[in-house]
Amino acid sequence: MAGNSFGTIFKLTTFGESHGQALGGIIDGCPAGLELRLDEIQHELNRRKPGQSAIVTQRKEPDEFRILSGIFEGKTTGVPIGFVIENTNQKSHDYSHIKDSYRPSHADYVYDQKYGLRDYRGGGRSSARETACRVVAGAVAKQLLKDIRIDAFVSSVGDIFLEKPYQDLDFSKIESNPVRCPDPEIAAKMEDYIKEIRKQGDTVGGTVTCVIRNVPVGLGEPVFDKLHADLGKAMLSINAVKGFEYGSGFCGAKMKGSEHNDLYNPDGTTKTNLSGGVQGGISNGMDIYFRVAFKPVATIMQKQETIDRDGNIVEMQGKGRHDPCVVPRAVPIVEAMAALVLADHYLLSRNSRI
Amino acid sequence: MAGNSFGTIFKLTTFGESHGQALGGIIDGCPAGLELRLDEIQHELNRRKPGQSAIVTQRKEPDEFRILSGIFEGKTTGVPIGFVIENTNQKSHDYSHIKDSYRPSHADYVYDQKYGLRDYRGGGRSSARETACRVVAGAVAKQLLKDIRIDAFVSSVGDIFLEKPYQDLDFSKIESNPVRCPDPEIAAKMEDYIKEIRKQGDTVGGTVTCVIRNVPVGLGEPVFDKLHADLGKAMLSINAVKGFEYGSGFCGAKMKGSEHNDLYNPDGTTKTNLSGGVQGGISNGMDIYFRVAFKPVATIMQKQETIDRDGNIVEMQGKGRHDPCVVPRAVPIVEAMAALVLADHYLLSRNSRI
Amino acid sequence: MAGNSFGTIFKLTTFGESHGQALGGIIDGCPAGLELRLDEIQHELNRRKPGQSAIVTQRKEPDEFRILSGIFEGKTTGVPIGFVIENTNQKSHDYSHIKDSYRPSHADYVYDQKYGLRDYRGGGRSSARETACRVVAGAVAKQLLKDIRIDAFVSSVGDIFLEKPYQDLDFSKIESNPVRCPDPEIAAKMEDYIKEIRKQGDTVGGTVTCVIRNVPVGLGEPVFDKLHADLGKAMLSINAVKGFEYGSGFCGAKMKGSEHNDLYNPDGTTKTNLSGGVQGGISNGMDIYFRVAFKPVATIMQKQETIDRDGNIVEMQGKGRHDPCVVPRAVPIVEAMAALVLADHYLLSRNSRI
Amino acid sequence: MAGNSFGTIFKLTTFGESHGQALGGIIDGCPAGLELRLDEIQHELNRRKPGQSAIVTQRKEPDEFRILSGIFEGKTTGVPIGFVIENTNQKSHDYSHIKDSYRPSHADYVYDQKYGLRDYRGGGRSSARETACRVVAGAVAKQLLKDIRIDAFVSSVGDIFLEKPYQDLDFSKIESNPVRCPDPEIAAKMEDYIKEIRKQGDTVGGTVTCVIRNVPVGLGEPVFDKLHADLGKAMLSINAVKGFEYGSGFCGAKMKGSEHNDLYNPDGTTKTNLSGGVQGGISNGMDIYFRVAFKPVATIMQKQETIDRDGNIVEMQGKGRHDPCVVPRAVPIVEAMAALVLADHYLLSRNSRI
Repeated sequence: MAGNSFGTIFKLTTFGESHGQALGGIIDGCPAGLELRLDEIQHELNRRKPGQSAIVTQRKEPDEFRILSGIFEGKTTGVPIGFVIENTNQKSHDYSHIKDSYRPSHADYVYDQKYGLRDYRGGGRSSARETACRVVAGAVAKQLLKDIRIDAFVSSVGDIFLEKPYQDLDFSKIESNPVRCPDPEIAAKMEDYIKEIRKQGDTVGGTVTCVIRNVPVGLGEPVFDKLHADLGKAMLSINAVKGFEYGSGFCGAKMKGSEHNDLYNPDGTTKTNLSGGVQGGISNGMDIYFRVAFKPVATIMQKQETIDRDGNIVEMQGKGRHDPCVVPRAVPIVEAMAALVLADHYLLSRNSRI
Repeated sequence: MAGNSFGTIFKLTTFGESHGQALGGIIDGCPAGLELRLDEIQHELNRRKPGQSAIVTQRKEPDEFRILSGIFEGKTTGVPIGFVIENTNQKSHDYSHIKDSYRPSHADYVYDQKYGLRDYRGGGRSSARETACRVVAGAVAKQLLKDIRIDAFVSSVGDIFLEKPYQDLDFSKIESNPVRCPDPEIAAKMEDYIKEIRKQGDTVGGTVTCVIRNVPVGLGEPVFDKLHADLGKAMLSINAVKGFEYGSGFCGAKMKGSEHNDLYNPDGTTKTNLSGGVQGGISNGMDIYFRVAFKPVATIMQKQETIDRDGNIVEMQGKGRHDPCVVPRAVPIVEAMAALVLADHYLLSRNSRI
Repeated sequence: MAGNSFGTIFKLTTFGESHGQALGGIIDGCPAGLELRLDEIQHELNRRKPGQSAIVTQRKEPDEFRILSGIFEGKTTGVPIGFVIENTNQKSHDYSHIKDSYRPSHADYVYDQKYGLRDYRGGGRSSARETACRVVAGAVAKQLLKDIRIDAFVSSVGDIFLEKPYQDLDFSKIESNPVRCPDPEIAAKMEDYIKEIRKQGDTVGGTVTCVIRNVPVGLGEPVFDKLHADLGKAMLSINAVKGFEYGSGFCGAKMKGSEHNDLYNPDGTTKTNLSGGVQGGISNGMDIYFRVAFKPVATIMQKQETIDRDGNIVEMQGKGRHDPCVVPRAVPIVEAMAALVLADHYLLSRNSRI
Repeated sequence: MAGNSFGTIFKLTTFGESHGQALGGIIDGCPAGLELRLDEIQHELNRRKPGQSAIVTQRKEPDEFRILSGIFEGKTTGVPIGFVIENTNQKSHDYSHIKDSYRPSHADYVYDQKYGLRDYRGGGRSSARETACRVVAGAVAKQLLKDIRIDAFVSSVGDIFLEKPYQDLDFSKIESNPVRCPDPEIAAKMEDYIKEIRKQGDTVGGTVTCVIRNVPVGLGEPVFDKLHADLGKAMLSINAVKGFEYGSGFCGAKMKGSEHNDLYNPDGTTKTNLSGGVQGGISNGMDIYFRVAFKPVATIMQKQETIDRDGNIVEMQGKGRHDPCVVPRAVPIVEAMAALVLADHYLLSRNSRI
């Protein structure tokens, strides 16, 4: 139980460091008979990949996955799906300066303290490169989920917010700009701001909103594995995430019951949806929506004081090619993790009744 | 995997409905040799119990727990600790009106849809009465954690916020008022507001903040079981929770890296703590702090339209004795869940090194 | 993960010591809508209970179970089923002589070494009294399994063997004699032998055979959770079990492939069944049958030398009321554990295909 | 939970089919700081590999493993260890004859029934080729276990038995002959018999005995995860295994308590060891020993009648290069699985006490 598995029935286990030979994973529990479209998996990986636009890191990683098992004649066979993504572009010398020093607000220090040693190259296992495996597995999960639609988008960068309710947005525009914000005007502002921030050698945080539609009623396993609790854990397990709220979220904490309650229509749908598609931990068939907060990337191109292994003060400056703002590339990761949670709960829910 | 277990090593499994014979649970994985102070467990239960003050539900439930196994001559023996809390005050007739109708923003509808039937008395398993078992187990976990201090308090009720940073608060004042807000002035305002809301037959939401001090470095199991991800899931699994943020949280998403990074002192502590005591999913020895959003209680003493099983519109009004605001009683539940997470990760971390 | 849970979907967690206040358990994952016949559960408990015949221990334990949750109007509701069995007949003074000494071939010594202390009364958690909870849960599992028939019987006591193939036996005779051997003549011999052994203050081992019929094709989750592997673990987890074989078992290890292979009939059944109903870890629809070896009960009414906590040699003689031979009472336990495995795999198998 | 993970703390998850691109696995939970000798891992793989002697299958598979993550500068880092074994010698055309027909006593039929389709090439996932991954992980586990010695050997082939107690054997001779039987005379007889069997186009079963020495007291997690129960499951999960017994095993079922009890020496060791090193499910420090029964390989070079997918009777004859007797190559697999169980329980036992 060292924390590298996710899910109970549809279960992903991953391995791999930023600068090791390869990353990869095993999806166990994918039912047999699913016709798998590999191009859609690669498409999701490409959305996450470095170098895709001017506002993300300019590292060059092809991020090509190879499925090693579990597929026969185009279909899943019910046995585990193993996959790898080779690491081809590791510039280990970029990282020698952090061998003995701890980057502020990175995991260097805690890995050393917890494990007694660490693979310092590129952050090792703590690098967000690990999320590529999540995207592969999430793309498989998405295909299992068929009609369920999962769409994430950037809803804020720094102080620039997309204020419109998601119902007023055109999700087909999400991929129309490098920020992945479906409102082109706001997207342009965000893009400009990110470029400015990068010029300063700085980074900035943001939020991603995710909307899940066509969810069947009945997903979620109270009292601990409530659907939104597993979604929350999934999101919080993504690098740089500091917060999660669903439905009315933190705003709901200011409201009165008479304002907050979602009244029913005769068909079981609700007139409002402050519940965010989940009641008592179980999906109620309404849209599920939630918001995820990402802190600014810790690696900045400015001088910072920090300490080395022996507690000496040293000066450090970020090297290499880093994202000035993580949220555009986080969009497919948020979707992938949501898909993993939904797939798992979909399979679990098949045993709710005799 | 029907969702009623929490933890991997220090593992709690619970059972029980609001109006069944009893609730209870099993703690498996508590190491042997822990001298257990039963009065402290009862003390935590009393903090959660109905009827403890004028601003909470006036139901009378003694909430006395009985440990049935796992303790011998005052110490844990390493075998599972079974416990029960008898239900003694169920007024089932209070709930007959919801037998065939669905309370808005409650779990009635989804339970019926998921399971095909439900124990409608008092909400059955979806009732927050279930959290009493969490408090018992959390109190055991707290004792295992020894020097680690977990303190939660109410940080907002509706629009009334406790703005002071937690470092400026006197935690010894938390229990000095029925709201469990450590600032007496703000507490008084909150109390007045809750009374007013109750008079209106309404309810109101709020937030609970939790601070964990003296945490050893090294708790947390990346990449999925990051310490804050498990804390988030734990909190989101509590009834009525809509959001979770730790450290800088949603505010962090507006910041720049140059503002957000926590610089190191020579001893490995950090000058600031926007990270919230966790970096890369692993505790770094600084205070862990997080905030949890609770929606307003769905049962209000006002007339609402809703539907019955057959989709007919019916009118409904809350009966019985309900909390106008859930956060004062949520404080010990938040602490309990935090303790469960910490205890589990503490035991897991013992195997980080050979 | 301290070992007190069994199963992944249909999951039993138990607690309780021989002389604690009560034993009990939680069944999580039983699907909703199962009409539960409580009398059948009690019937299974009665088959396991002490004092039921002249050849078992004469302890008096009513072994009445009480279900505390999870059932509403006679049906399972999909939430956890909690149950307790109160301990009413503990004669703790019977066990004071083992407080500081270790009974040979009992678990006293290893519990002390592992946990640093132990509840010595009646063997504490290591007592077979714990299996009562397995029987309750197994009886629920049996009802979930509907048409699947699980029948166990005593197939040997000491050197007295029931040699007939199970197909030649009349299972309706199993309960016709206190030994639970379906061949009345062999049963009589076994009974006499057990009585003689008891007169000697000694005990004797035996085997239990179990036959499971009407199993659907497709239960079992290779490569680790093969159906027979989980059956084997289930049986080996029962007190006093030393061996498990299924199908051809150890005899199969002497055979040639040309003798051992089960040839197919056109309908997919096989002409022979040396495979024991499982191929590649998955049920093939033929009868599953296996045999379980039980060692003789360690507590004998004869003087034995042993050691105390400090390593001093002391003399010890069994006190109290113990079984001269454990297999008659083991029959319902074997069936219960088989039912738990089958129920779990039945639910797991629902997710084999999309 | 589709059955491809083993262990709770030291956890192996595997993937891969006989004729897919590669097999592999992830070891999660190996503590940091273990200096890993890769040559020892390859050595174990070589012991399992085809073509190593005249009495095993003459397939040529290099069986070279590649570790992709989790090791840095020769040491484990506490993050998951991913590894692959490429498939380089698949002769898929060898297997076209079984595409639509079911080999007797193979898993072809049940895979088709369970999953609705199967990768028929070389048996797909049901092939024993999968055990190569177990050997890699077991070799890592062995290195973690340091002083604990695990030795398995062939104790019978058909009717030829190694009767000597293991204490009288010279384990250094195990690898001195292709059968892996430490008694050279018996080994020679076994070898001759296997050759004769192969000449007949037949196969034969056998048993493997395993002895584990220097086990610390206290491994095992009652009541379900008893050490021997997990060992039993581990062994039964290996292809072709039909039975498992430890200590006195099935013989113990014929004995009296007065004969079977192991009396203590003052130091806590026992004068005899019919318990097989485990009492109450917990290691007592004495040698653990057990015996595993393997059925004859199902693929024989003789004509057999069987059925095709549509239930038509067809004739079939084994093709390809198969083992006439599986036990010599099973020896390292038995050791590997034993090592996995011991490593897991070793880590679990660290949390027995506060």
